[in-house]
Amino acid sequence: MTTTFQLTPTRQQFASDNYAGTCPEAMHWFMEANASGHEPAYGDDRWTQRSTDMLRTLFDIECDVYFVFNGTAANSLALASLCQSYHSVICSPVAHIETDECGGPEFFSNGSKLMVAEGQSESARLGKLTPDAVSALVTKRSDIHYPRPKVVSITQATEMGTVYTVEEVRAIANAAKKHQLKVHMDGARFANAVAHLGCAPADITWRAGVDVLCFGGTKNGLPVGEAVVFFDKAMSEDFAYRVKQAGQLASKMRFISAPWVGLLENNVWLRNATHANAMAQRLYHGLQKLPGVSVAHTPEANGVFAHLPEAAVHALHAKGWKFYQFIAGGGCRFMCAWDTTEASVDALLADLQAQLKG
Amino acid sequence: MTTTFQLTPTRQQFASDNYAGTCPEAMHWFMEANASGHEPAYGDDRWTQRSTDMLRTLFDIECDVYFVFNGTAANSLALASLCQSYHSVICSPVAHIETDECGGPEFFSNGSKLMVAEGQSESARLGKLTPDAVSALVTKRSDIHYPRPKVVSITQATEMGTVYTVEEVRAIANAAKKHQLKVHMDGARFANAVAHLGCAPADITWRAGVDVLCFGGTKNGLPVGEAVVFFDKAMSEDFAYRVKQAGQLASKMRFISAPWVGLLENNVWLRNATHANAMAQRLYHGLQKLPGVSVAHTPEANGVFAHLPEAAVHALHAKGWKFYQFIAGGGCRFMCAWDTTEASVDALLADLQAQLKG
Amino acid sequence: MTTTFQLTPTRQQFASDNYAGTCPEAMHWFMEANASGHEPAYGDDRWTQRSTDMLRTLFDIECDVYFVFNGTAANSLALASLCQSYHSVICSPVAHIETDECGGPEFFSNGSKLMVAEGQSESARLGKLTPDAVSALVTKRSDIHYPRPKVVSITQATEMGTVYTVEEVRAIANAAKKHQLKVHMDGARFANAVAHLGCAPADITWRAGVDVLCFGGTKNGLPVGEAVVFFDKAMSEDFAYRVKQAGQLASKMRFISAPWVGLLENNVWLRNATHANAMAQRLYHGLQKLPGVSVAHTPEANGVFAHLPEAAVHALHAKGWKFYQFIAGGGCRFMCAWDTTEASVDALLADLQAQLKG
Amino acid sequence: MTTTFQLTPTRQQFASDNYAGTCPEAMHWFMEANASGHEPAYGDDRWTQRSTDMLRTLFDIECDVYFVFNGTAANSLALASLCQSYHSVICSPVAHIETDECGGPEFFSNGSKLMVAEGQSESARLGKLTPDAVSALVTKRSDIHYPRPKVVSITQATEMGTVYTVEEVRAIANAAKKHQLKVHMDGARFANAVAHLGCAPADITWRAGVDVLCFGGTKNGLPVGEAVVFFDKAMSEDFAYRVKQAGQLASKMRFISAPWVGLLENNVWLRNATHANAMAQRLYHGLQKLPGVSVAHTPEANGVFAHLPEAAVHALHAKGWKFYQFIAGGGCRFMCAWDTTEASVDALLADLQAQLKG
Repeated sequence: MTTTFQLTPTRQQFASDNYAGTCPEAMHWFMEANASGHEPAYGDDRWTQRSTDMLRTLFDIECDVYFVFNGTAANSLALASLCQSYHSVICSPVAHIETDECGGPEFFSNGSKLMVAEGQSESARLGKLTPDAVSALVTKRSDIHYPRPKVVSITQATEMGTVYTVEEVRAIANAAKKHQLKVHMDGARFANAVAHLGCAPADITWRAGVDVLCFGGTKNGLPVGEAVVFFDKAMSEDFAYRVKQAGQLASKMRFISAPWVGLLENNVWLRNATHANAMAQRLYHGLQKLPGVSVAHTPEANGVFAHLPEAAVHALHAKGWKFYQFIAGGGCRFMCAWDTTEASVDALLADLQAQLKG
Repeated sequence: MTTTFQLTPTRQQFASDNYAGTCPEAMHWFMEANASGHEPAYGDDRWTQRSTDMLRTLFDIECDVYFVFNGTAANSLALASLCQSYHSVICSPVAHIETDECGGPEFFSNGSKLMVAEGQSESARLGKLTPDAVSALVTKRSDIHYPRPKVVSITQATEMGTVYTVEEVRAIANAAKKHQLKVHMDGARFANAVAHLGCAPADITWRAGVDVLCFGGTKNGLPVGEAVVFFDKAMSEDFAYRVKQAGQLASKMRFISAPWVGLLENNVWLRNATHANAMAQRLYHGLQKLPGVSVAHTPEANGVFAHLPEAAVHALHAKGWKFYQFIAGGGCRFMCAWDTTEASVDALLADLQAQLKG
Repeated sequence: MTTTFQLTPTRQQFASDNYAGTCPEAMHWFMEANASGHEPAYGDDRWTQRSTDMLRTLFDIECDVYFVFNGTAANSLALASLCQSYHSVICSPVAHIETDECGGPEFFSNGSKLMVAEGQSESARLGKLTPDAVSALVTKRSDIHYPRPKVVSITQATEMGTVYTVEEVRAIANAAKKHQLKVHMDGARFANAVAHLGCAPADITWRAGVDVLCFGGTKNGLPVGEAVVFFDKAMSEDFAYRVKQAGQLASKMRFISAPWVGLLENNVWLRNATHANAMAQRLYHGLQKLPGVSVAHTPEANGVFAHLPEAAVHALHAKGWKFYQFIAGGGCRFMCAWDTTEASVDALLADLQAQLKG
Repeated sequence: MTTTFQLTPTRQQFASDNYAGTCPEAMHWFMEANASGHEPAYGDDRWTQRSTDMLRTLFDIECDVYFVFNGTAANSLALASLCQSYHSVICSPVAHIETDECGGPEFFSNGSKLMVAEGQSESARLGKLTPDAVSALVTKRSDIHYPRPKVVSITQATEMGTVYTVEEVRAIANAAKKHQLKVHMDGARFANAVAHLGCAPADITWRAGVDVLCFGGTKNGLPVGEAVVFFDKAMSEDFAYRVKQAGQLASKMRFISAPWVGLLENNVWLRNATHANAMAQRLYHGLQKLPGVSVAHTPEANGVFAHLPEAAVHALHAKGWKFYQFIAGGGCRFMCAWDTTEASVDALLADLQAQLKG
């Protein structure tokens, strides 16, 4: 007999969009895939084929798709496939690959150095790379003691909750191509960016010059899994071997790929992202009305960055709210997920308001 | 509206135990974990804690447990933590880490060489390493051009469907310790070995001298996931960082760990394995009765190795049966899973018998 | 018959101290080692033993010594031996390991990230790391997404031609030890630092808390070769294997080690460095007298950093002088070597003076 | 004053050709290069240019040449440039890259697996790979769990003192090309092979299908250094960066490259090798006359493999002779160098003869 573990009902939090669970449509297909009984392993199953085809339709191109377990692996393997150990990758100083992967990109590539763009521009403040910053790093030096730049990596939506416009991506890609660099897009929150832009996924990726996209599924409602999408098949040669060697090939692949069918069918991925973005807007508008709170910039995706009085931060934490203090002294990040409710947003705002008044 | 993909009912196969799906108990806890709503990420959730505690109880020791995505990663990361790039790992020539990981152990360790034991002994024929083979490789050379052996890796149950006895493991571990080597156990089918031996999990692991066990969950009924179990915490220092860097840390960890609760509760893991082993016995006894079929050795776990007339192999494949021809000329492997039915075994035997008569 | 290649007499340059050749004493022992005829390979020769013993005497401790081919390898292997791939190394933003090794440290360590200290302090301007900067990086974060700091690396003399005092090294080492970090010293110009400080080599290394020193031989007068000196033998376990695997073990080792006898005998290493430092002082004093030239800071080793009018830079380059324009707009570096003559310094100054007047 | 270390005159040995010192012509150019005074670093010097040009003339093709420090690095870097970590390299079981590099190739390539050819053929006994063995390993499996073969590596002369004929190399290269594999030649004793064959260096390399040659200088009379020669420049893209990152770029490059001028001028490399080969023949003929000694096969390069009574092996070792007991029970290897004298060969034979009679 299976004993049921006593679930303490949990409050929705704003620490990360990965606090959310699996969305119903992904769960449906997970169970559907299990109902089949025996199924070929390592991706030779029907759901892997189906979700791959759906991604090709979504991106309107015969792309190569590889499902891996998480974002660290997706980004690191994609980058490793675009450069050698003695090359370098240009990125923003707040890029997740630079700040939060414990050296994952360097590990998978066996040493490719991340070159962090400098700059005090408004774009930099918004977490964005610029064509000028790319060119500056490429042309800075050309000696062999400087690892030759080979890739530009941009995060869409950015780590600051902003979104590159199609024109901005194209401009960066043009700067990259001019110097024979490839363009990688860390799309852990790609869905949120597309929801904001309202464009076709193709417009903000390969049509704008992106070579490889790491399309985030986990934050969008999957239990586990990201898709590495190569728009140019010439770049994905033997990538399946790379995935295998690096411990990223699921034997029972259907459980990774079938939930993608749930996200892709009926545009659930976009609906999930649109909802999360809307909750960020609701939080943003609520915060703007509160005295002593300053919002860093208008959110464009599902995260709100705001400066709170430090006492308020402590009070909220004491009340059980979870969110990151991004910058010492009260700089906070609030993330909304596909399942964040209006009530949760309002409850956070109410607790904050009560504290600010108190 | 979610459209249901038309499932073609699938036949049970004998190609691999990873053709099977997720067992009901694991599925139950997967859904249970999802019902919770928001939950801290990266393992700070209740199911990770609970399944870890259950493994400590199961192994009767305060072990360190890390959940990773698959066996390639579990074994490669465990081995990498036991040696440096200029060391070597001793294993059997049929060890999965040697033959089927596309260089994964060498990749994660940045170059540790696998030293394959030689030998024509009966043990070697059964896929087992021996203390003598270990000692021979360690003492063969002691110059710095020879990567210094630091680890012995054994697979339990072996890739040949046999199981090391407690005494055999202890003898190998003693030989290893004598030369200051660590002992790693690839337990992709650890449950099947324990089911065969009928011993306590502790008896065949740390009490017999094993330092690290990679406990396979996927083949035992999980959708995805293996547990790396360090019996000596001194060896797991900073292993969490290693897991993170190597792209093996699940953000929504509960979906990896909660199904383990399902396996561990009420000894489902052992029941699943016992059933799979029994199906292998059924198949073994059936095969023995067939003319022209010779079974390599008595199965001890969930796989049967037999030599079939080549025409029979082709005929079965033509009829839609999937299984591996291990050795050219008719050497075949048949794997049974936690869900393999008697009817499936009998159907395979019937088709084979019909073919042999024909 | 051996034809003599027509040597164009070359002018002494200030681009790098590695433009200089081999000093006579090193050359003497190189030839001496060759006169021996057959000699055991891989370091089992008399000169390797002798030079190792001399280094032990010099440092007044039973240190472990490994001779490798160049500074990239010396530093990268030493760092790799002090941390794992998921750890990090704290260094100055101008550290050679960060700016000029083409990702060598990340390659040899398979991904250890270099953590560059920030800061606008006077120490930072002088190319030095500070205890505060070390502590700030260590305590900044403690999550597993941030590669755990394990090593502090300082360059002595620094890349800016300054020298850490004994107290400064001790303060950094104390900050490091407080956080269980090891201390690595990149001593490509260690001799120049000791010549400046006038202290015992032990005082500025192990007595001040340094764990491993990469003692530069090439810039000090060797044809090729650096010594990795472990003051604590517990840290050098199996380092010989690491050196071998990484392609840094010379078969005819005597030709790497014998020249070290030349440097170490009669304190030639110190004499060479003292001379180079004096030439830098001569250049510094000469530059100070020139209008339009501003020297960045008082040189303490063998390099002078000065800002010249850009036209003067071009004119000197046009006249055949080689030196690096460190910073766009006229920030230049002039390096003096063990063989730099007063006449060369004066010739450079005269050409510059003529240009400034013109 | 420089004290002269008391040189004990050493006996010539047969342990390895790397026991020999630097030949006079290499020494001449080493000193010549030093006489120049200041010289640009990192290969922008006259001797690097000159020796590179001489190698182009020697090989009769516009090849790309890189000078590195030793054979471990030369072979490992060349192989790493021809495949990715998830690929594999096919070689003989006695290949030096497999048996004596402490995992160097796996380290530099971050995990490329060496695939050892099996076989009991006469060729295998002579240390040679065959086209059939290559094809067998390539076609053995095609799944992603098996690292895809990308390179064939052959050693010329082999580790068994034999030499591939031009036809043999061409046949292997043809088999390789048929499967889109590149061909690497470990030429640690390339000169000895050419001396035996009497062919043009081009005939046994690029004209026979070799893509990259590691041309050994050390065993041929250099103090330190090997040349990596890419016959197809398309394969050497960014190889200079790889060399730099891997710690194989000499700052004072002239001291590595100038001695090559000495080897290449007047065909000293060939003369040195011819002499060493002749000494091996002398030893071979001498051994054949001794009772109780059986020579494994006719030497074609500079090594003799013979089986001696074990007591004789011990007696020779006791008399101070150094040579390797290759196989337990008396299988010995005797290597001759560029400077081995007839007297040394005869003295060894005399001592052996005396022992056998005794």
